[in-house]
Amino acid sequence: MIDFRPILFIIGILMSTLALAMCLPAVADAAVKNPDWEVFALAAAFTLLIGVMLMLTARSRARNLNQRQAFILTALSWTIIPAFGALPFTFSELELSYTDAFFEAMSGITTTGSTVLTGLDFAPPGILIWRALLQWLGGIGIIAMAIAILPMLQVGGMQLFRMESSDSSDKVLPRAAQLITYIGFIYLGMTMMCALSYWLAGMRGFDAVAHAMTTIATGGFSTSDQSIGHFASATIDTIAVVFMLLGSLPFVLYLRALRGNPGSLWRDNQVHWFLAIVILAATAMAFHLYLNNGFGLREAFRLASFNVVSIITGTGYATTDFGLWGTFGLTLLFFMMFVGGCAGSTTCGIKVFRFQVLYATAVTQIRRLLEPHGVFISYYNGKPIPYSVGDSVMSFFFLYALCFAVIAIGLGMIGLDFLTAMSGAATAISNVGPGLGDVIGPAGTFASLPDSAKWLLSLGMLLGRLELFTILVMLAPAFWRR
Amino acid sequence: MIDFRPILFIIGILMSTLALAMCLPAVADAAVKNPDWEVFALAAAFTLLIGVMLMLTARSRARNLNQRQAFILTALSWTIIPAFGALPFTFSELELSYTDAFFEAMSGITTTGSTVLTGLDFAPPGILIWRALLQWLGGIGIIAMAIAILPMLQVGGMQLFRMESSDSSDKVLPRAAQLITYIGFIYLGMTMMCALSYWLAGMRGFDAVAHAMTTIATGGFSTSDQSIGHFASATIDTIAVVFMLLGSLPFVLYLRALRGNPGSLWRDNQVHWFLAIVILAATAMAFHLYLNNGFGLREAFRLASFNVVSIITGTGYATTDFGLWGTFGLTLLFFMMFVGGCAGSTTCGIKVFRFQVLYATAVTQIRRLLEPHGVFISYYNGKPIPYSVGDSVMSFFFLYALCFAVIAIGLGMIGLDFLTAMSGAATAISNVGPGLGDVIGPAGTFASLPDSAKWLLSLGMLLGRLELFTILVMLAPAFWRR
Repeated sequence: MIDFRPILFIIGILMSTLALAMCLPAVADAAVKNPDWEVFALAAAFTLLIGVMLMLTARSRARNLNQRQAFILTALSWTIIPAFGALPFTFSELELSYTDAFFEAMSGITTTGSTVLTGLDFAPPGILIWRALLQWLGGIGIIAMAIAILPMLQVGGMQLFRMESSDSSDKVLPRAAQLITYIGFIYLGMTMMCALSYWLAGMRGFDAVAHAMTTIATGGFSTSDQSIGHFASATIDTIAVVFMLLGSLPFVLYLRALRGNPGSLWRDNQVHWFLAIVILAATAMAFHLYLNNGFGLREAFRLASFNVVSIITGTGYATTDFGLWGTFGLTLLFFMMFVGGCAGSTTCGIKVFRFQVLYATAVTQIRRLLEPHGVFISYYNGKPIPYSVGDSVMSFFFLYALCFAVIAIGLGMIGLDFLTAMSGAATAISNVGPGLGDVIGPAGTFASLPDSAKWLLSLGMLLGRLELFTILVMLAPAFWRR
Repeated sequence: MIDFRPILFIIGILMSTLALAMCLPAVADAAVKNPDWEVFALAAAFTLLIGVMLMLTARSRARNLNQRQAFILTALSWTIIPAFGALPFTFSELELSYTDAFFEAMSGITTTGSTVLTGLDFAPPGILIWRALLQWLGGIGIIAMAIAILPMLQVGGMQLFRMESSDSSDKVLPRAAQLITYIGFIYLGMTMMCALSYWLAGMRGFDAVAHAMTTIATGGFSTSDQSIGHFASATIDTIAVVFMLLGSLPFVLYLRALRGNPGSLWRDNQVHWFLAIVILAATAMAFHLYLNNGFGLREAFRLASFNVVSIITGTGYATTDFGLWGTFGLTLLFFMMFVGGCAGSTTCGIKVFRFQVLYATAVTQIRRLLEPHGVFISYYNGKPIPYSVGDSVMSFFFLYALCFAVIAIGLGMIGLDFLTAMSGAATAISNVGPGLGDVIGPAGTFASLPDSAKWLLSLGMLLGRLELFTILVMLAPAFWRR
């Protein structure tokens, strides 16, 4: 039998933290005398109550979690937090149905950025800051998970990064908790730098903070229905591009850089590949816009770089309706949704290191075809890729394609059109934000979808955010045995 | 340096065979006094001339091909044959542009079944029999390749079948040439049985033969613009379903069955999986049609089973415009395009055994997550899957997804709409036939696409038919070195 007490104890801690976070929007609403402050206060009290009750009743002497408990904790915490985080959306003046509220909260905490809300420009500050806060917490949550839990669980090739950080010859801090604390400070510092830059570029203080939180988290919630396009400023676009990219790099490298090894950021293969993909896609898109859509070269580059970076990193901001960019735009952005950023960042998607492993394996495969008796080894960052990592990454890729197909077919069964079903499945599982097409594209919202589609998409976001295996492993009967 | 002479010698033989095949449509046209018989006769003479010239000039003492030569031979023969096979289309009364003619011939020889032609119902018999013949030759060609060449080249996990057939404890005939001869007779026998069944069910003799050739080859060219739907006969639908399925099973198992081991067909894991996927998809589609599209249960099953089998096996016949079946139909059929049949059959696509290997590896992966120190082995057909096969299959899957994405983006760049670009790329690389949507769906043709799209799709068909690696390996600089 699995001992649930240590799991529920930690979930109690997380819920208490969530309750604490709810006080910030309460203060924001109280400051402008919006009656919603009571909703946030009540939701905070309720969440705190349940959280403390869990902590008290589930206290146990067990200190360490085993594998199974870690899996359950991960899946459960990323379900319970949006379940409670949804409360303010339901009971505030927005009066969302619980389905809509859960969708919005799940989209927030998984840093997806798909929304069911319109009229953001006139929404009370509490709701806006709560959305930003969910993404910001989700962003640091996912980095913490990528550093502390996923490598231990050996999920989808993430053991590659366990070896790296536990390598004693490396000067990386050995203990995960300490590591996460340091990275938390870096995360906070970058958010403040981003907010300051936005503010200097002309945003109101409130907007600057809210957008900084969702930029670094590569989340994509905005305080305006027009997203970043609302500000119509090339400077703001550029700041967003820079910080979206910064949010997509491995945060552990920033720590190394600060500890006197700035070169580690530039020597990392994953960073090279990521930037190469971004530059290639943005340049292709810019030339397409210049040649076929009648934009000036400068404007084409600005639009292309912003929106391509926003999609690849899974942020989901928009400065224009890229649904109007023709099919090259649609097909390129569709496939770019799957890319994601680097491991150990706030981004989601398949992630660049997996493409590197897949590419290296495919090249090795081709070389083996030419010399069947030769011995070929695939490398990642100059080190041989162990068999277990290769298998793990390739299974991840297969299951990713499979889950994508199942969700897309499910959305088709619910009755969404082909483009909406395909891009909806892709944007959910890769935690991007907007889809493609008139309905869920950057000019639309997810509000009009049937409830069943919203639950399916929420499941997709959870699957994508937790790197599939964390959820799928629980479907194995062996998981629950003995 | 690579010695091209033995390659060109064999291509000379193949071209002479092609020239011989061209005589059949010449006879058919001459019989109805259609002047196109001269076109076929001239094309045959020209092809024979070049073929014999190649055989004479490239004669060499070398008997065996090495790896590289085998790769070049495979790629070159599947390019040169459609290049010459296109001649009758260009010079006949159809007066196709060479692009259209090449597309049609490539679609034929790769057993894809995408067409640029309309007015088939009134087309001269020579053209119709030539299209059927191309697919029929392509079908046996691909079985021969899957038995003799791909396992030797270890392409995409096909070494799984080399081991099987060279296993001395197995009573399968050891020598490939002999094996192919036997299977050729089985292929011919099944074609005749299929033609006879069609004829008994009411088709004209000519139509019966033409359709039998494209059914067994899972090709999909028809003698009517309405495809099999033209005959509006439940019996003919059923015959087509049975023989499409028979064409999708491993032909080597038929041989074993004939040699006194009928059980081998029913004990093969790949056959179980294939039939399970077909039944599952057809049943889901039938209930969808029954519940949402207002068909009777019987009619729903008839339509669903025919069209689902036609798409999964990559045949590409249609009995109705399944573009009108709503998005569930579109999304399900879209993903079904990738499935394909069994290895060693006339089908294309990813193929069922690869899904089995991918699934087995993913399950092993999940079990390993639960017991990191346990030893788990993936099995295929009761035997452990060697590492090299697993890697090979997974690289194949990754490259398949990558090639699909590149072709779809390319079609988007050319300006096709999203559904046409996505389904066009899928139908080409999986050699299915029709795409989805108004343009290239079962009710349309590929005629209206720009030339560049036709060439790109032709490349996609070639890539898919030759299992990617055979073409991609030649892009490696190492291939051409020394």
